[in-house]
Amino acid sequence: MIPLEEIRQISVVSPSKIVMLVIDGLGGLPDAKTGKTELETAHTHHLDHLAKKGICGLIDPVSPGITPGSGPGHLALFGYDPLGFKIGRGVLEALGVGFELKKGDVAARGNFCTVDDEGLITDRRAGRITTDKCTELCTLLSQVKLKDVRLFVSPVKEHRFSFVLRGNELSAELSDTDPQKTGVAPYAAKHTKIIAKHTAGITNEFISKAKGILAKHRPANMILLRGFSKLPDIPSMRETYKLTPAAIASYPMYKGLAKLVGMKIFNADSGINEELNILAHHYSEHDFFYIHVKEADSAGEDGDFKRKVKVIEQVDSALPQLFNLKPEVIIVTGDHSTPATLKGHSWHPVPILLYSRWCRPDNAEEFSESACVSGGLGRIPATDIMPLAMANALKLIKFGA
Amino acid sequence: MIPLEEIRQISVVSPSKIVMLVIDGLGGLPDAKTGKTELETAHTHHLDHLAKKGICGLIDPVSPGITPGSGPGHLALFGYDPLGFKIGRGVLEALGVGFELKKGDVAARGNFCTVDDEGLITDRRAGRITTDKCTELCTLLSQVKLKDVRLFVSPVKEHRFSFVLRGNELSAELSDTDPQKTGVAPYAAKHTKIIAKHTAGITNEFISKAKGILAKHRPANMILLRGFSKLPDIPSMRETYKLTPAAIASYPMYKGLAKLVGMKIFNADSGINEELNILAHHYSEHDFFYIHVKEADSAGEDGDFKRKVKVIEQVDSALPQLFNLKPEVIIVTGDHSTPATLKGHSWHPVPILLYSRWCRPDNAEEFSESACVSGGLGRIPATDIMPLAMANALKLIKFGA
Repeated sequence: MIPLEEIRQISVVSPSKIVMLVIDGLGGLPDAKTGKTELETAHTHHLDHLAKKGICGLIDPVSPGITPGSGPGHLALFGYDPLGFKIGRGVLEALGVGFELKKGDVAARGNFCTVDDEGLITDRRAGRITTDKCTELCTLLSQVKLKDVRLFVSPVKEHRFSFVLRGNELSAELSDTDPQKTGVAPYAAKHTKIIAKHTAGITNEFISKAKGILAKHRPANMILLRGFSKLPDIPSMRETYKLTPAAIASYPMYKGLAKLVGMKIFNADSGINEELNILAHHYSEHDFFYIHVKEADSAGEDGDFKRKVKVIEQVDSALPQLFNLKPEVIIVTGDHSTPATLKGHSWHPVPILLYSRWCRPDNAEEFSESACVSGGLGRIPATDIMPLAMANALKLIKFGA
Repeated sequence: MIPLEEIRQISVVSPSKIVMLVIDGLGGLPDAKTGKTELETAHTHHLDHLAKKGICGLIDPVSPGITPGSGPGHLALFGYDPLGFKIGRGVLEALGVGFELKKGDVAARGNFCTVDDEGLITDRRAGRITTDKCTELCTLLSQVKLKDVRLFVSPVKEHRFSFVLRGNELSAELSDTDPQKTGVAPYAAKHTKIIAKHTAGITNEFISKAKGILAKHRPANMILLRGFSKLPDIPSMRETYKLTPAAIASYPMYKGLAKLVGMKIFNADSGINEELNILAHHYSEHDFFYIHVKEADSAGEDGDFKRKVKVIEQVDSALPQLFNLKPEVIIVTGDHSTPATLKGHSWHPVPILLYSRWCRPDNAEEFSESACVSGGLGRIPATDIMPLAMANALKLIKFGA
């Protein structure tokens, strides 16, 4: 990919608009009976129309063969090399619960676990306590006082929680306390760089106090922390592309990822129609919109082929609302594939369509994995999409003389 | 791309010949009525024949979405990473007027401009004085004497000129004197690295003397300099590929770019037939020929779809002259796209065809953007072309054992 610094030097402000519609987990695999993927099974009149007028292809979010998490998948779509900008487990967990992470905060993913009388782990997930119980315990742990730092303990789901330390000169260069096995005691947090010695001390003090508080709450009588991390130092989309970007999404993690690159966040809880209403309402205020549709991925993860088809059809039937706005550039793609047959994220390249007045249309007659194989965009890294979107919006000047 | 050093280690000398025919700005966009691009509209019997026997594809000169200038576009075709080897504005301007730039020379792009009595800029282009007037003023400025350095002031066009300093230990690490706006005084040249302090002093001395000379030549009563640069330190094609390369071209800039990578230059002013005559005449002396056809780009820049079609057809009808020589490898491509509908360089990938006895032919039945989409070369970076040319000429040995 072209370095962000080069993009920054050739990007210009213009009134043209880019809309990037991300159908989470869009790519799929064929159903054994029909031989058609979810996208190929869905009736997608409007997407097919757009594919005919536009240009299609396949994108690799990270690299061929690599199954991306939501973090890397989205960073690549926003034009940031997911191998260069890494989002730690702790940061992703905090973003996922909508925690307002600040620069310098140290975040970790937490588990409630069970230890025996000798302090050895007997269950790394504390019998998967209820989310209610988790919430109750997080409230207790939040009351721990530590010198010079604030701490935040937020429930995630069942035994999982998000742990954040805020203070001066904290470092995330710490090893996990989770040994990832039973029969041993949790490890102490150790600094992996000398700069983190202070933070290790604070963390271990917290763990010790937490142990005291939790003693009477068996099976959740201890905690494990892993994935200590800070927000990556990432240039904003405003800085890189001179855009005023906005995100329209419902799930906290995606709003968090969008915020990470400097997007203004609009919350939409009730699906694609509400999202497109918000788009119409705020259309004049921004020149880049990222719209996130989560449900296709959830259906794929559940192995529910039909439900994923239905989600894609719902998106399709809402599209005239988008077309009415006549954005100069429309991109429809996913952050990764989630084939229902695999019940999870996968490495398969993701179908993409790009429409603009200035794209060079290809022979794709519909939006499908198989049509995208021979699409005019070819098979490209996902990080190339933002430069292509910018170019098609006539927002990039010539590179070199 | 594979590092040049690796190429150097596996390239071998052989009698086989490579001809790279560059139709400047070749790639296009469809005409609204016919749905066909310039190349698709042109009757190209011989190119189609070559496409049938050869292998086709699309190239990205810099990266998807990036619109290349002529410098980066050509460097990539010659196998040099245009993000790694940058050609400054000043160097390109000097090459463009055919100035014999030497290693260590510092070049800048100059503008004659107008300043008011207080020295504030009122017109950055001095009312676009005639090229004759520009030539007259350049002759005057050439007579400025500076201690220990020579200077060269060459007219370009209208208010534009090329400025070159030659001497010992000059540095191009200087800021522009052109503030890119009116109502302020021209900046002094400032060193951006301490090594350039001496050169900044010399440059400002020249500017001050130039101001004196120009005082009575209003509106061209002052100068602005920008894009201070030196020739990039680039290994020659002889060194990298063990080729004895030659360029056949008419425009100074392309001859300059070819000289930059060590090509012998043959001048051809009257079009493709003369170029192919020169090729035939010097065929035994070189094993690599770069032939440049400028007019397709000029027609595209002028928005003249029909004229671009005609240029492509002229090239096509001259091809039997090339075929007669039976070069082992023929490549036909462009340094970038210049769609007539966009009236300028664009980011669209460029069609390429490669013919050799050893290429693996594909299903492309004609040379066109749409046939190239499904061509056997796929969509590749332009920097891969030279290794492919070398391989097809059987001039590369195995990499690794």
